Amino acid sequence: MADPKFEIQMLHDRVMVRVQRDSEERRSSAGIVIPATVKMANRLVWGEVCGAGANVRSVKAGDKVLFNPEDQYEVEVQGQLYLVLRERDLHAVATQQTDHGTGLYL
Amino acid sequence: MADPKFEIQMLHDRVMVRVQRDSEERRSSAGIVIPATVKMANRLVWGEVCGAGANVRSVKAGDKVLFNPEDQYEVEVQGQLYLVLRERDLHAVATQQTDHGTGLYL
Amino acid sequence: MADPKFEIQMLHDRVMVRVQRDSEERRSSAGIVIPATVKMANRLVWGEVCGAGANVRSVKAGDKVLFNPEDQYEVEVQGQLYLVLRERDLHAVATQQTDHGTGLYL
Amino acid sequence: MADPKFEIQMLHDRVMVRVQRDSEERRSSAGIVIPATVKMANRLVWGEVCGAGANVRSVKAGDKVLFNPEDQYEVEVQGQLYLVLRERDLHAVATQQTDHGTGLYL
Amino acid sequence: MADPKFEIQMLHDRVMVRVQRDSEERRSSAGIVIPATVKMANRLVWGEVCGAGANVRSVKAGDKVLFNPEDQYEVEVQGQLYLVLRERDLHAVATQQTDHGTGLYL
Amino acid sequence: MADPKFEIQMLHDRVMVRVQRDSEERRSSAGIVIPATVKMANRLVWGEVCGAGANVRSVKAGDKVLFNPEDQYEVEVQGQLYLVLRERDLHAVATQQTDHGTGLYL
Amino acid sequence: MADPKFEIQMLHDRVMVRVQRDSEERRSSAGIVIPATVKMANRLVWGEVCGAGANVRSVKAGDKVLFNPEDQYEVEVQGQLYLVLRERDLHAVATQQTDHGTGLYL
Repeated sequence: MADPKFEIQMLHDRVMVRVQRDSEERRSSAGIVIPATVKMANRLVWGEVCGAGANVRSVKAGDKVLFNPEDQYEVEVQGQLYLVLRERDLHAVATQQTDHGTGLYL
Repeated sequence: MADPKFEIQMLHDRVMVRVQRDSEERRSSAGIVIPATVKMANRLVWGEVCGAGANVRSVKAGDKVLFNPEDQYEVEVQGQLYLVLRERDLHAVATQQTDHGTGLYL
Repeated sequence: MADPKFEIQMLHDRVMVRVQRDSEERRSSAGIVIPATVKMANRLVWGEVCGAGANVRSVKAGDKVLFNPEDQYEVEVQGQLYLVLRERDLHAVATQQTDHGTGLYL
Repeated sequence: MADPKFEIQMLHDRVMVRVQRDSEERRSSAGIVIPATVKMANRLVWGEVCGAGANVRSVKAGDKVLFNPEDQYEVEVQGQLYLVLRERDLHAVATQQTDHGTGLYL
Repeated sequence: MADPKFEIQMLHDRVMVRVQRDSEERRSSAGIVIPATVKMANRLVWGEVCGAGANVRSVKAGDKVLFNPEDQYEVEVQGQLYLVLRERDLHAVATQQTDHGTGLYL
Repeated sequence: MADPKFEIQMLHDRVMVRVQRDSEERRSSAGIVIPATVKMANRLVWGEVCGAGANVRSVKAGDKVLFNPEDQYEVEVQGQLYLVLRERDLHAVATQQTDHGTGLYL
Repeated sequence: MADPKFEIQMLHDRVMVRVQRDSEERRSSAGIVIPATVKMANRLVWGEVCGAGANVRSVKAGDKVLFNPEDQYEVEVQGQLYLVLRERDLHAVATQQTDHGTGLYL
């Protein structure tokens, strides 16, 4: 008989996010690629939501979300690294359907 | 078939602002231009709203807003740089119609 | 055709104040003038209200208000410098009509 | 025609107090006078209320109030120095009529 | 005619306490007297309530109260030193009648 | 006639606790005794409740309670040392009857 | 007659957790084992719930929970080490039945 399987569920207002590594390759407005090793203070990045706690209202799994990558909690599941954030620390969401979008696309 | 497109939508009380670069060219009251490299503590600047979260009540896309440019979050979309602020950190708005304006114009 | 004009309107609890420069010339109780370059910690100054946000209840344009000049936000409009304060950081108001005044006059 | 006169009115929970200079002459319990230049940490002093904001409930003009003289805001009106305090920073009041007094007199 | 007399009344949640000087003579559990000059961090002391503000519910004049003597405000009235505390900073009271006492006596 | 006796009663959310000195003798999981002089950061200890203020809901005299011994207030009564804690700083209770116990015993 | 037995019950929002020591053996995404002595800032770990206070709503004994192992309180019961956490400091739970799980398994 197989071991019982434990499925992960986020708690409270927590959101699990997979960081898009290519978001670390940055390009200046003049089009010059900035290596990831150059630290840019206060620069936000995009990631994809993998799970959200019962109190989370504004994002769902599959959405892309904008957040500050500094000082976030990390967890590794099945060899893949995820970040754990609070919903209030997400600044924007990018989805295929929006109701009051910015008219800007990823 | 084209890739699905993800439209950006601000969350909560967040406001996306495009900074007016010419607002960095400053002029003293005597009319002397102050180069942008001279740091002026606590000097507020103007920018234009590009998007606002569902909780934002007092400004909308197209409004010009007054804020402190220090220590703000940045995001780059399609090679253009934007700032992400909270509504409560906006000090004033400039629009073509106002209901209790100051009588001062940009 | 002329450019559209953007009128400035204060937000939330913010108050725009024009500082009275002569309030920087100080006089000790013995009548000696103290130059503005001598820093006096915790000394409040008077300014005139030019605009107030929709949440401001206790002052209006034209009132003179008492506040701490240290570490305030500044904005320059049409070559004139203004301070931006929160209503709660105003300590007193001086007007031509008062309902529970101190009996002291500016 | 005379200039219009602006009467000062305190705002919110602010209280304007005239410090009693003789309260700076201190006397130890043995009766020895302690010069005002000897700093006594956490020693409270008495002053007289000259005005109070609309939210102030527990003191009125003419009352004597007990407060910490350190780090308070100052304002000079007609050559006389006053302190500006918040009602919550007053510890005791001394009046000619009290309803639950201590039985101690100034 | 005599000067009017000003009776002191505590404000808000403030409590005026006379410190029992003998509470500064300490005795270790083995019965050895510890001089008052040996600082014992976090050691609470007893004092007697002389007055209490209108919001104070749990103690009254004449009660003995337990508090931390460090960093408290002091006031001298008629040559006697008192401390001024907030009700919430009192940890215990000792009275002749109690309704849920500890069974321990001073 | 005997002196009146003052019984001690805790105030608000305060709990008086007698520390079990043997809880300072620690034993590692391998069974090795660790002397009390070796500081173990963040290690909680057990004590016995001797009195509780009127707002305390979850513990009563005679219960054993788990708390952080660092930086607590102390008081000596009749030559015996007690700690004074707030109810919210208690992490667990051990009693002879529990309704949702852990199944672990002291 | 045997001594009375005291069963431990968690208080308020506290959760007692047994740390899974093998969660300290870490593996990088490339599959390389990272020794426990290499400190990884902000890396969360899993533990098993052994008891929860009456206010805890989202986890129960037997659940596996995700938390930050830094600066937590410890208690030793019967020679076994446990951590004491607050429910709000748990980021995720892993159980055999979930209602809005992430689709990721431990």
